[in-house]
Parts: sequence; C-alpha cells; structure tokens
Amino acid sequence: MEFASDNAAGVAPAIIDALVRANAGFAIAYGDDALTKRLERRFADLFERDVSVFLVGSGTAANALAIAHLSPPWGAVLCHSEAHAIVHECGAPEFFGGGLRLLGIEGDGGKMRPEAIAAALERHFGLRPHQVLPAVLSLTQASECGTVYQIDEIAALAALAHERGMAVHMDGARFANAVARIGATPAETSWRAGVDVLSFGATKGGALAAEAVVFFDPARADAMAERRKRGGHLLSKHRFIAAQFEAFLTDDLWLKLAAHANRMADRLATHLASVKLPTLWPVEANIVFVQLPQAVHERLQAAGAHYYVIHTDRSDPATVPPGYVLVRLVTSFATTETSVDKFIALLKSTQ
Amino acid sequence: MEFASDNAAGVAPAIIDALVRANAGFAIAYGDDALTKRLERRFADLFERDVSVFLVGSGTAANALAIAHLSPPWGAVLCHSEAHAIVHECGAPEFFGGGLRLLGIEGDGGKMRPEAIAAALERHFGLRPHQVLPAVLSLTQASECGTVYQIDEIAALAALAHERGMAVHMDGARFANAVARIGATPAETSWRAGVDVLSFGATKGGALAAEAVVFFDPARADAMAERRKRGGHLLSKHRFIAAQFEAFLTDDLWLKLAAHANRMADRLATHLASVKLPTLWPVEANIVFVQLPQAVHERLQAAGAHYYVIHTDRSDPATVPPGYVLVRLVTSFATTETSVDKFIALLKSTQ
Amino acid sequence: MEFASDNAAGVAPAIIDALVRANAGFAIAYGDDALTKRLERRFADLFERDVSVFLVGSGTAANALAIAHLSPPWGAVLCHSEAHAIVHECGAPEFFGGGLRLLGIEGDGGKMRPEAIAAALERHFGLRPHQVLPAVLSLTQASECGTVYQIDEIAALAALAHERGMAVHMDGARFANAVARIGATPAETSWRAGVDVLSFGATKGGALAAEAVVFFDPARADAMAERRKRGGHLLSKHRFIAAQFEAFLTDDLWLKLAAHANRMADRLATHLASVKLPTLWPVEANIVFVQLPQAVHERLQAAGAHYYVIHTDRSDPATVPPGYVLVRLVTSFATTETSVDKFIALLKSTQ
Amino acid sequence: MEFASDNAAGVAPAIIDALVRANAGFAIAYGDDALTKRLERRFADLFERDVSVFLVGSGTAANALAIAHLSPPWGAVLCHSEAHAIVHECGAPEFFGGGLRLLGIEGDGGKMRPEAIAAALERHFGLRPHQVLPAVLSLTQASECGTVYQIDEIAALAALAHERGMAVHMDGARFANAVARIGATPAETSWRAGVDVLSFGATKGGALAAEAVVFFDPARADAMAERRKRGGHLLSKHRFIAAQFEAFLTDDLWLKLAAHANRMADRLATHLASVKLPTLWPVEANIVFVQLPQAVHERLQAAGAHYYVIHTDRSDPATVPPGYVLVRLVTSFATTETSVDKFIALLKSTQ
Repeated sequence: MEFASDNAAGVAPAIIDALVRANAGFAIAYGDDALTKRLERRFADLFERDVSVFLVGSGTAANALAIAHLSPPWGAVLCHSEAHAIVHECGAPEFFGGGLRLLGIEGDGGKMRPEAIAAALERHFGLRPHQVLPAVLSLTQASECGTVYQIDEIAALAALAHERGMAVHMDGARFANAVARIGATPAETSWRAGVDVLSFGATKGGALAAEAVVFFDPARADAMAERRKRGGHLLSKHRFIAAQFEAFLTDDLWLKLAAHANRMADRLATHLASVKLPTLWPVEANIVFVQLPQAVHERLQAAGAHYYVIHTDRSDPATVPPGYVLVRLVTSFATTETSVDKFIALLKSTQ
Repeated sequence: MEFASDNAAGVAPAIIDALVRANAGFAIAYGDDALTKRLERRFADLFERDVSVFLVGSGTAANALAIAHLSPPWGAVLCHSEAHAIVHECGAPEFFGGGLRLLGIEGDGGKMRPEAIAAALERHFGLRPHQVLPAVLSLTQASECGTVYQIDEIAALAALAHERGMAVHMDGARFANAVARIGATPAETSWRAGVDVLSFGATKGGALAAEAVVFFDPARADAMAERRKRGGHLLSKHRFIAAQFEAFLTDDLWLKLAAHANRMADRLATHLASVKLPTLWPVEANIVFVQLPQAVHERLQAAGAHYYVIHTDRSDPATVPPGYVLVRLVTSFATTETSVDKFIALLKSTQ
Repeated sequence: MEFASDNAAGVAPAIIDALVRANAGFAIAYGDDALTKRLERRFADLFERDVSVFLVGSGTAANALAIAHLSPPWGAVLCHSEAHAIVHECGAPEFFGGGLRLLGIEGDGGKMRPEAIAAALERHFGLRPHQVLPAVLSLTQASECGTVYQIDEIAALAALAHERGMAVHMDGARFANAVARIGATPAETSWRAGVDVLSFGATKGGALAAEAVVFFDPARADAMAERRKRGGHLLSKHRFIAAQFEAFLTDDLWLKLAAHANRMADRLATHLASVKLPTLWPVEANIVFVQLPQAVHERLQAAGAHYYVIHTDRSDPATVPPGYVLVRLVTSFATTETSVDKFIALLKSTQ
Repeated sequence: MEFASDNAAGVAPAIIDALVRANAGFAIAYGDDALTKRLERRFADLFERDVSVFLVGSGTAANALAIAHLSPPWGAVLCHSEAHAIVHECGAPEFFGGGLRLLGIEGDGGKMRPEAIAAALERHFGLRPHQVLPAVLSLTQASECGTVYQIDEIAALAALAHERGMAVHMDGARFANAVARIGATPAETSWRAGVDVLSFGATKGGALAAEAVVFFDPARADAMAERRKRGGHLLSKHRFIAAQFEAFLTDDLWLKLAAHANRMADRLATHLASVKLPTLWPVEANIVFVQLPQAVHERLQAAGAHYYVIHTDRSDPATVPPGYVLVRLVTSFATTETSVDKFIALLKSTQ
C-alpha cells in the first residue's frame, strides 16, 4: 500500500534492461555517443518537428535550467502557487536564473486561470526599470493536484503569455500521465498549443533518473549546452541516461506505464466515492486528494499504508472539516490492483 | 505643488554646504579618511552602542546589501507585499542575495501583522531541504502607505522572527519621518525593539545620495566590506558621502527636516478631511493617500500639481469608487506651506 | 584499443548488478531510504570518523558544490592551472560559488608546489576590501597528468592553506587510483593529511554516475543539503546512487578496479619505455602522456586506437619536438591486457 | 606632496559649483529630469554618434555593469593581469556577470599585446561545452602603469577580439588622461578604433562620484537600465550625477584637468630623470613608477610625502634592486607645481 510518491517506485523492467544492454563496450562520453544521437532523432519523431534536447538527472534540474534559459535575471516567472518549482525546489530556478523571481498564482485544483494571470500581470509589472519583467509562464502538466490542463486551456494561457512577450514553459514531470489521459499527441499537448520548452519527465514515470529539456525552437537553445555543463548536469557516461529515455519511448512504454498509474488512481477514486469520500479535485492523472476521517487514517497508517498528510494551510482553498485529515495518494507504474484493493478494503472496514 | 516624491526635492542647504566644506584639500580614499572615521563614532553615539556602518549611495543598494548579508541564497525574506524591496528594486535583493526569495505579506496600510507572518511561516516553510528557509523579516519604517510601526509593534514582529531564527531588517528610507513622529530615540525605534540591521536613509530626507547600513551587532558585519566593494558601492571619494551624513545628523537636522515634512503631510490631511476627503490610512509620516473625484484630479493636473495616480489593483484592499482616482501625495523637507495651501485652495475651488 | 577516457568505459558488473538488486520494491525518495542510511555509516567506517556525505551524479557537481560551500562569493580558490575545475567545468565553481574566483597555479606534472602557492598568496591578495580573499586550496588527486600527491606533499600544502585560514578541498575523481597506488588508508590520504572536504569519485572508477562529497567535519556541512537540492543534484530515486557506491566500496572493489587500471597504465608505460618513448611524467595513476612520432600516431588512428591528442600550448611546459604529437592514454577498470598489447604491438610495427 | 591617488583629490571647483546650481527647485527622480536628458544629447555630440549612456557612482560599478552586459555567465573576459577589474574590484565583474571568469593577460607596462591575447585564446578555450567562452576583451586606457594604448594598438586588439566574436570594453577611469595625451578625438580613441562599450570616468578626473557607461551601439544596451537598477546603481536624485558630468564636459574641462595632471606627471618624470631616477615605463598619463633608494624613500615619507610603495612581486616584470623601493606617484587636477617641485627638491637634497 505504497501511495507516498511515484518517486518511491523503482525502475520499470524494460528500462533496467536497457541500462544493462547499454553497458556493452565503450562509448564516447558527454553525449557524443551513438545512442544519444539516435535518441535525439527519436525526440524529433515523437514531437513531429526539429527539437533540441538536453538530458539531465532530476526534475529540479530540468525545470531550473529551462526557466533560467528563458528568463533574464531581472525576469519574473509566473507559476501556480503550489507548483513544484516554487514550493519544492529550494529556490533552484532563482539560483540557476541569477536571481529571477517566481510569482505564485493562486488557482483551484493546481491550475492557473487566464484571469488570474492577467490580474498578476496588471498588478506586479510595468514600471521600468523599477520592476522585474514578466518573462515566463510555467505550467505544470499534470498539476500537483492531479488535474490536467486541456489543450484549449494551454492554448489560452500560452496566447496570453505570448502577447506579453513571455515564453511558455511546461513542467512535465508527469507529462506522460497528462498525455495518456488527454489522448492527444505529444505535439498537440505541447508546442502546437503554444509551449516553447518542455521539461519532459521520465523518472516518476518509471526511469531511474532521466529528464529531458525539450526546446521546440532549437535556435532558442543556443548555449544551453554550456548552461547544463556549468550546472554539473552533463553526465559523463551519458549513454545511460539516453538508454533510459530510449526504452521509455519505445513501443509507447511511457504512455502504457502512465495509463496504468492513471487507472490505479481512478480505481482509488471510484472506490472512495462509493464510500462517500469524494476526491477534492477531478482525478485526471495519478494523484488523488481526499479527506479521511481521523480514525480511518490512523487505522490505515497502523496497517502500513504509506501516504502523505497535507496540512490544510498549505492547500488552500481546501478547508478540512474537524475530525478529518487531508491526504494525498499517488499511484505509479508499479502500483498493483491488489494494493489498491487492499487499501480500500481496509478503509471500508475501518469506517 | 510638488507632491510626486521626496526624491524630487533637492538637497538641504546645510548638506550642500557640508559638501562644499568637505572639498578642502586631499583626503585618503575609500573611507579611510578622518571625516568618515569621525562619522562612524557619531553613529555609535546616536544609537547608544557600538555599531558597524557602511555608507552607500542608494536605498536600493542599502536594502539589497543588508538583506543579502542576513540571508543565505536559499533563504526567504518576508516583507510587506507593497515594500519597496519587492515592488520597486527590480530584484536587487535577489541579485545581491544569490537568488534568495522575497515573500510578500499582505497587510492593511503597508504594515505586516504578526498573524500574517505566522501564517506565512506555517504555509511556506519547513520541509528541508526542499523548501527555502525563512531567514529575514524586513520591515519598512515608515511604510510605503505613510504609516508607522509603533515600538511595541516592531518588538512583537521582531520577537516572532527571532523565535524562528530569522534576522530583522528595517528599511528606513524614511526612518527619520518615523522617529520624528514616534518621538522615541533612534535606539528605541531600532535595536532596542529587536532590529538587527537598519537601512538608514538620508537621501529622501534631504541628502544628495547617502544611505547607511547600520549593523547593531558588529560581529554580524564580517566581510560586509567585501560585499559592498564587490557591489560597486564603496565610493572612492568617500569623504563626500560621510559629509552628507554628518550634516544630516548635526543638531538633529534629520529630525527637524523630517518633522517639517510630516507637518506638511498633516496639513494636507487636515484640509482634505475638512472637505470630506479623508485619507486612506492614518497620516503618520510624509505620505498621504486620498481618493479624488476625477474632475478635481484633472483640474489639479492642469494647474500643474505633481503627484502619482495609484492604480487600485496595486494597492489592495483599497477599492476606488467610480468617478474617483486614488492619488499619493508625498511631502519633503522642501515642501512649503504655500504650496500645500495653494493645492488645497485649488482643490476646494474645483470641488 | 580504447584509451580516450575512463568515462568511455561502461559500468563494472558488480555495480550494474547492485542497481538491479536495488530495484526491488518501493523505497522512500530523496535519500531517506534504508540503503542510503546504511551507506552513510559505511563511509564513516571507511574514513574512520564521522563524516557528512552528499551523493551527486557528476564530478563537476561534486567539485562545484564542495568548493562553493567552502568559499564565500568574494573568495578565491587556488588550484592547478590544468585542474578539471578550472579547465573543463565551464565555470561551474564560479556559478555555484556566486562568482568566486579560480586562480590557476602552474606546476610541473599537474601538481602544485608550496612555493608556487606561497607566491600566489603573496601576489594576489591582502588589500581588503579591494581584493578577493584566499579561501580554498583544491588539490586534484590523482592529478590530470596522472601523477599522485604523496601524503607528506598533501600535508605540506594543507598546512600552508590552513595557516592562511583557507580550507582544503580534494578533487578525487580518481581518488581510488591514488589510494591504490599510495597504499595508505583513505583516512591517511585525506583528512589525516589535512583535507577538509573530498570529492570522492566513483564514476570514472566503474560506477554509472555516482560521486560523493565527503565533509570530514560534519559541522561544516550545515545547509549543504539545501545547496545540493537547489543545484538540482538531489536525486529522487536516491537509492540507486547509493547502491552504486555500496557496491563500489564492498570488498574493496573500488581499490581493485583502480589497481587494475593503474596496472594497465604501467604496462603501457613499460612498453613505451622499451621502445624509447618515455612518458612525460611518472605514471602513478591511470593516465599516460607520451610523445609519438606523427607517422606512428597516424597508423594507430587508422587502426582504430582511441585517444586524445593534446595541444602543446595547453600542457606547458611540455614542448613537443617537430614531427611528434603529444597524446594522452587513459586506462580504466575495463581496459584489457589484450588491448594494451595490441596497441603496443601496433606501435612497434609502425615505428 | 599628495601623490597617493587621484582619488585623494577633492572635486574641481566648476563641478562643485554645478552641484550647487543643480540644487535649485524640484526635479523628477531616477534620470527622467531635464538635466539628464540634456546630458545624454551632449554625449552623442561628444562621440559623434548615437550612444546609450548610463551614469553610475563608481568606477567599479561602471566596469562590472558593462562587462556583465557584454558577457554571458559562461563567458571569459580577457584583461591585463594588473587591470583594476581583476586586481582591485573584489570580484565585482564576476558578481555582476553571474560567475563569469576574468583571465589576466601579462604584458609589460600594463598593456596587452596581440600575441599574448592570441596565445590565451589558443590555450584556454575551444572545447564546448566544457570550457568557458571568450566573450570580452577589456582594455584599460590609460593603463594602471600610466601608459596609453595608441589608436592603432587599440584597433589591432579590437580586430582580434571581433574576429573571435568577442566584444571590446574599455575601462576609461583615466580616459581623459589618455585622450588628452593622444590628442585625437574621443570618437577616434574609442568606437572608431573598435571599442564597443566605454567606462568613461569623471571621478578621478575631478568629479565627486560620476562615471558613465557608454554603449556605442544603443541596441546593445537593451535592458541595461534594469541591470543598473538591480545593482542599486540608479540614483534617485539623478540630476546631481548628470550635473557633474555636464560641468566635466563643458568647455573641455575634462581635457584641461587631465592635461594638467599629465603635465604634473611629466614634470615629476623630467626631474626624476635629471637625477638618474628614470621612470619604469613611459609616462603617458598621470602615473609615474620609479625606484627610489630606500634612504630617499624614508626621508620623503618623514617629510610627509604621500604615495604608495608597490611590492615587486605584484608588478612583474619589474625587479627592484636591493636597497631600492618601487613607488607609484599619481598626480591629479589638484596637483600643484609647488607640490611637485617641493617633492623633487626634497628628493634631491636627500640623495
């Protein structure tokens, strides 16, 4: 009953196998190897256009490098107030961005609305050179609340950003879950809707440590190689990070793994609803927020269920009723139906 | 009728005279001159304790250097959401602080309340090493809304910060106006109430370009000399910045100039109230916010009155009624009664 | 005949196996897992004292994070003029260190001498606050030239640094090769000789991507967790980096792999000497520099030998005679005797 | 007998007068005032082309802001190994430049030669993305040794830089002294010879605190206003810095003051030569280096002469004979013939 994080899962078998296979013989270091070159072409095929791709080992690195490359040090980056980049990266975007500013935008269910962005643009900017310049809009897809931006929602937000000369970044640590849910192509879910740079995550989806920063306009990636190297994020035995991604993309593995995680979240949601414990937000990816009675929570913990309790003051506007705790359940490619069913059974028995 | 900014005033005569006097002969550069040494002792007398003082030429420099010296790059600095440091310094604290984060705290009248700070501390921090660490509380005294923190208010906020291991910075660009209004000593208004480092402004108060970063614990100032130099803020002909401050402090000039500016603001407020145009917040320094009927505003502008219109979305929670504009009137040492009276007369005639 | 880099080798079988084994089940993310905890105790045993250890995925990250943690932004870091940190990390130390300065010290065979450091200290520092402060001495062990600092040499350099209040960092990307050669304990080769912080590399030695920053005084590591996270170098599935290191350290694998690489370098050197091609510097680790006749070089290349030609202007004071090229041959755990012998045979036949 | 620094002089009378005059009435803050606007046009006239000008209060600020604007954080800036930017600014260029690297180029008499730059370009760069990129060549005119680059020398160095895609910066803290000596126009001495951005100093030349960063291609100055503000270098009462420069430029005051300082240096040099104490380098500006017998030096010091002793290890290749000290004598607009003659008389009497 492991629902703490998709990071608690290990590595999908096909990806571990690919690592072992990639270990044959020697390969030139720092990304000049054949496997990496082959993977770069694979990304172009996947996104149906020329792209520049930079592989790194962590989602924080991917986000911070991407954002820093899109914003000057005196720029501001608008993201949801619960976005990973602003809440859980210990200031990495500010560090990589030479002291840029993150501006948190409130929005129900982890999603920003155009009105909120327009209001922020109106309120915080405009007096040059006294104020920082709005430079980037960063969307998290799927969001930290387990919701998903529909394609027209992305397009509306991106249009707003582009009108103001801002670039659009997508934190796709769970891009796979979003694409699997929406059912559109990766291109439609990203650049065709206005995304300029995507942090495309594989780690949460089943890799060991593999994230890709994808520039849909390669010209924009100029000197990104220096930025990555200087950040310590160019791996010497680069073939092994490429191998993970290659396996992730082969035969739509990434979508299959994500679809499984999504189904497990759906299964949790369905069962929870059946016992009158509705989820806080629509379950559109692999994350479920639900308020559990305190007693139920204690029994689940005692039985070894792993998940995080979310303090309500951190997840406004949710107000947790007395006697309840707000919990977050995350599924992954490794979550089993048995595990979900055991969790639900236990929950029902203790209710 | 100049009410746009206290920065629009020139230099007080005694200070310009001091510059001319300081020009006699040669003096060793970079702050090793006799005048600077004398001034440093003067600061100790003024604050009734040993202090370390660093003179710089702008308020932005004073704030950014002070804040950067008190926070690690992974620190967060809590300040009012309308504070100069977060709204009007183009990210200087982030730049000097290696990518630290400013966190704006809402609060009526430009003042933070303990509850709001406690709530922010609860909401944004605590998960190490994923979150930035609360490092500094920065109070603006007098505030951007023209209000003043009373000594017990400073003490309450400082205690809250110190409990959490945070340092307390005071942006005192208008410290003179606050001290003149409160009537307490500089020591009581700063370190005795818990302030660790003060940006003590002279420029808005009548100097040409002179601000002092005052460390009340000299041990805390270690390597601040390097930080200032590296920021380009160590003036070579340093005697001239010291001379400004010496004149500013001599015979309580700083308090006399501030008291005059405060009186001019009071005079504006009294007259405005008499014509049923109450100020938005208590007038406790040299700044007056008032909502003027649009027609009155236009007539004043046409007559050559200078002041800024504040867009309501930027000064929440003020809601400006239809047909009105919110304006900010700032007085200075150079504001004359004649100018105030002319403004009021004009305003009355057009109402 | 792969002698281009130890980074061109794959992963040692025991380490790949450990990765596969570590993949069983779930584990809490970000380094709070059991395997990581166990490994941390293992490091303490290895170094015979309490240590603080931070695992990261690249040597550049390890060096830059370590150096930045030991130096203020206005500090200077003295390292050999051919050190990886100054030549091949694209400014990573400066980036992580908020703009610190690297100062290259010349020295034959990749090693700094006390006199050269003393001269640099005399020449570049001392005028506060106009000059940067000497903060760190960074030794590369084994050096980029394939030489090794003896323990008394480390001690002499460290004493010089400590006298001046500087910290001592060791870039141990090839620490294993040095320890294997010297035959002393890891403790004797590091903190007992005066090293404060060690970048302990496993990647070049046979891991996939695993480097450890080891603080011998845990108090000095305060907030290093934030620095690592903020740099994007805290891996979410952290057990997999710990697993690599555990396998690397188990049964002295690290020393066995390094000893093999060293032996292969010795074998190259011996054979080269036998044909009157002496190495430029003593071969004390897994790197061999030798001047080859141009014709020999061309034949080797044609036959598929991989190695780098070093431009002489980059490896002062080596002066390459006309008709010769200076080449660098690097061996690794994966280098075979067959490969060495084939290379030598080819070389002899073309001479 | 004040020869310690041109920073020890006060402010030229015409400039102090201009400050007093500028103090009449109110003026809009932050550089939007009429005086500043007028001055900007003056700069265009002076340099015979459109320019973008940014006034700041210190030479370190001017250099650091200019260099940072011309180089990416992963760039390298080549300057003379004795340049102010690398020796006496406490890492300001690295700080403002987000961790860029300064690379000191040796050269006799404070001047870089094309061969030395070509050699450095060959030695330190080229392996992307592992090495920093050469981005800026920074010339000091007049140099720290009191020598001057002739126009053809500037042109040759600038051509070399431009060929490699580097920008050319000139640290003109003593630009006035150089122009006065060369006798060419400011345009000929700067952009016509290939300079892209000039730090044009007035402080050493007679101002209180006024330096201008002049972009000869205004397009290159995009967002420089933000960079300056963010550095704390946009003065609020900006008219006073503009007033200093206006007086400095009026009726060629800058050239007259500089010519006087140069003449005083010449007078020192002539007299020194007459007593067989030749200067180390040609005296082309207002700085004189000479080796004095220890006894002479002590007598001069006792008599109250002010100047700095230069440690020989810091001014390679000068080798000071036993019994001698190397001293630097700096003249300024305020140096009197009487003072020079008294110094020389004293020197002769003690020889």
